[in-house]
Amino acid sequence: MIFKQLSQQILLMKSFLALLFLFPLAIIAQVSDEEQLKSFYDTSLLEGQSYEWLDHLSNQIGGRLSGSYNAERAVRYTESELKNMGLDRVWLQPVMVPKWTRGPKEYAYIESKPGAVNAVNICALGGSVATPDGGLKTGVIEVKGIEELEKLGREAIQGKIVFYNRPMQANLINTFEAYGGCVDQRYSGAAEAAKYGAAGVIVRSMNLRIDDLPHTGSMSYGDLPAEKRIPAAAISTQDAELLSSMLALDDSIKFYFNQKCQVFPDVQSYNVIGEITGSEFPGQIITVGGHLDSWDLGDGAHDDGAGCVQSMEVLRLFKETGYRPKRTIRVVLFMNEENGLRGGRKYAEVAKEKGEQHIFALESDAGGFTPRGFSFDCSDADFERIQSWKSLFEPYLIHYFEQGGSGADIGPLKGEGVVLAGLRPDTQRYFDHHHAANDTFEHVNRRELELGAATMASLVYLIDKYGTASLQKIKG
Amino acid sequence: MIFKQLSQQILLMKSFLALLFLFPLAIIAQVSDEEQLKSFYDTSLLEGQSYEWLDHLSNQIGGRLSGSYNAERAVRYTESELKNMGLDRVWLQPVMVPKWTRGPKEYAYIESKPGAVNAVNICALGGSVATPDGGLKTGVIEVKGIEELEKLGREAIQGKIVFYNRPMQANLINTFEAYGGCVDQRYSGAAEAAKYGAAGVIVRSMNLRIDDLPHTGSMSYGDLPAEKRIPAAAISTQDAELLSSMLALDDSIKFYFNQKCQVFPDVQSYNVIGEITGSEFPGQIITVGGHLDSWDLGDGAHDDGAGCVQSMEVLRLFKETGYRPKRTIRVVLFMNEENGLRGGRKYAEVAKEKGEQHIFALESDAGGFTPRGFSFDCSDADFERIQSWKSLFEPYLIHYFEQGGSGADIGPLKGEGVVLAGLRPDTQRYFDHHHAANDTFEHVNRRELELGAATMASLVYLIDKYGTASLQKIKG
Repeated sequence: MIFKQLSQQILLMKSFLALLFLFPLAIIAQVSDEEQLKSFYDTSLLEGQSYEWLDHLSNQIGGRLSGSYNAERAVRYTESELKNMGLDRVWLQPVMVPKWTRGPKEYAYIESKPGAVNAVNICALGGSVATPDGGLKTGVIEVKGIEELEKLGREAIQGKIVFYNRPMQANLINTFEAYGGCVDQRYSGAAEAAKYGAAGVIVRSMNLRIDDLPHTGSMSYGDLPAEKRIPAAAISTQDAELLSSMLALDDSIKFYFNQKCQVFPDVQSYNVIGEITGSEFPGQIITVGGHLDSWDLGDGAHDDGAGCVQSMEVLRLFKETGYRPKRTIRVVLFMNEENGLRGGRKYAEVAKEKGEQHIFALESDAGGFTPRGFSFDCSDADFERIQSWKSLFEPYLIHYFEQGGSGADIGPLKGEGVVLAGLRPDTQRYFDHHHAANDTFEHVNRRELELGAATMASLVYLIDKYGTASLQKIKG
Repeated sequence: MIFKQLSQQILLMKSFLALLFLFPLAIIAQVSDEEQLKSFYDTSLLEGQSYEWLDHLSNQIGGRLSGSYNAERAVRYTESELKNMGLDRVWLQPVMVPKWTRGPKEYAYIESKPGAVNAVNICALGGSVATPDGGLKTGVIEVKGIEELEKLGREAIQGKIVFYNRPMQANLINTFEAYGGCVDQRYSGAAEAAKYGAAGVIVRSMNLRIDDLPHTGSMSYGDLPAEKRIPAAAISTQDAELLSSMLALDDSIKFYFNQKCQVFPDVQSYNVIGEITGSEFPGQIITVGGHLDSWDLGDGAHDDGAGCVQSMEVLRLFKETGYRPKRTIRVVLFMNEENGLRGGRKYAEVAKEKGEQHIFALESDAGGFTPRGFSFDCSDADFERIQSWKSLFEPYLIHYFEQGGSGADIGPLKGEGVVLAGLRPDTQRYFDHHHAANDTFEHVNRRELELGAATMASLVYLIDKYGTASLQKIKG
């Protein structure tokens, strides 16, 4: 009892001393944090490197689908740029990736009667099989979602092309929510339609605009045996509207499409990794990254060239501003996010094998638009701690701090004590470009990209300096 | 004394009752406000009209400089559209505006030696005089600002072209601040240089990017007599860099430019006005507007076609969602913001003459980009009241509420009891397009524009419903 009382007294005294001393210290620390953040933003906006890197990735290399020649060029280029930055370590982490190729440009039309055709814009979905030799021509049945298939039944679907035409919901403020509400059509639409004997699948592009660009993206046949797989393609929103209108007038019209995609055996590729070794706690790792692979239609500037160069810039900003991190800050350019996530899985697997302690991982994979904040996958204690830094971000108009998802590539790192976060840029224009031929460099604004990099560096700095709540809990 | 005590008791009781009753009421009101705001956003995003109006203004009409044929077409078009909306009143408010014309495309080059020339991209500043017949060719003296003129003195400046080359400061997060830090060169540069005998003025474009587009904008000769006025033009940032580099190598190079701008007598034009009459307080006026005129180089989509169509959309959203305002909501499309502000002045003048009570005015004149919030020119009490509504805006990612400026056109309404506000969209891309040939429709994103309109409607609705603090103060 006495011991307990004494302990309590000591605790009280400690609290009192803490109050006395922590306040001035906190003020000093606060000023210094403000200066460091300003220095990140100034350096990124006045002498940033991210835009030039993105220019090279987009315009000198281009689309970087896993297993492609361009993906390997991107590995070599970014490895070399990381080496030029004078990091403490730069290496390639081998990972086997799928190799799917689109083949020659897809071709499609709507045939209202023999000889009367409207050419339409399609692209094969990533992972789709080819159409039969000479293409596929058959009737079309339009649905707004997978759940309609059961009601329609095999009789209505057998031998036809299922046309998934549920649009993204434009009144959702966060366009990723609108995407989430539709993407099942693209990802699972073929696998589900095949169960009812469909001959193929056409999916309305995940695009909030009405335009003529088809948007690709990954799809899966699930456990469907190879002989039951049916070809699947995305159609531009404009042509989806056309097809729907024509079907409303005459449901006997036919759709023709021809695509020659192929799957090859897995090939060797790499995650590209560089780090600044921590000065005090080198064993505590903070990872910041994006994915180096992209779809093949555009040059992958927003998805996810932007996230890669921003992540590289985080480390450069640390070096340029002369801030030596206490913990190890690692940039990881993940391979194969788009159609396999092999890079993210491999990175987490190796980290586990080596017993590495990851305390924080941040991904930028939502486009190079004006940053609005972050979303966090972490404990309440960590979220509370991070929110206490909000005022530091206000001068940069960073207001959004929410609990939620982080990033696909860093997801496999999830575990006790790891804080995961995703940069959240403005989402309004993202799906105008996502996985389409217009995801190109000229649609990235230099300042918006640079603000994102500085915002990421600022959060990484604060976590490096103050650690995470989970970390303190582990330490006791 | 007894009376006072009684009063205090009654006051206490009132407070108690207020606490008891206001809470449930506040909750009911809150839900209803949330629903109304959602209804504005849904209607704007799902069936908005603003983008189609902007398409017409930009692509069917185009640049709308005051006094031009296009400005008058824009007056007729918007008047007709307001009439189609079924407002309670629509009218044109006559205002005399200046008429300045650019004339044929300007022409300029740098001459390093006779015959060795580099063509460069310039445009006359709005209000500038023409160069002498056949153009002006003379030596150049580069300065970073007006204050350097005095140090250089008449001897160095006499007969030369003063080249103002202070760039916008890229590390300012709010690009309007960067603009504010440079625009004196454009606005007063010629008047000041003329005092030292300069022959002409070339100003680096107010643009944060390095590209080949010159950006025009208004300038003034102040009280300089007509015979002392010298021609002034903007040069693209790329050519400003070129000129500066060439001067660094050889300060004897010459600059040639030729522009044939003219000033004509003032002409008749109009503010375009429409209103929904208030159901309870028709005499209390809420004004929402943008300016209908634009510079002539682009089609004025961002500056300020966007603000006009968003303001029109505010009234349409009120009608579409079936919300009948208590106060009179008036849309005003101001004429001549760019080079005279005659429309804004006229509107305030007439309001004063008629003894109209304006309680709130909101302007959108910072581009059709993702809205971030508002800035307010109002009393502390009003600002506090407005801030109490912040949480209603959070679902729409509207976080920015600051005291500061509002809009140029509504500025003349300033006075006791009027709350002035400006919509504050994201500023990062604004000066890529501002007053240049690429201020065009395709650079406005439909969703971003529509979100701005709904955000404006939401604030107008709250002010209409709850009134302003200043209003309650007046009432006692």
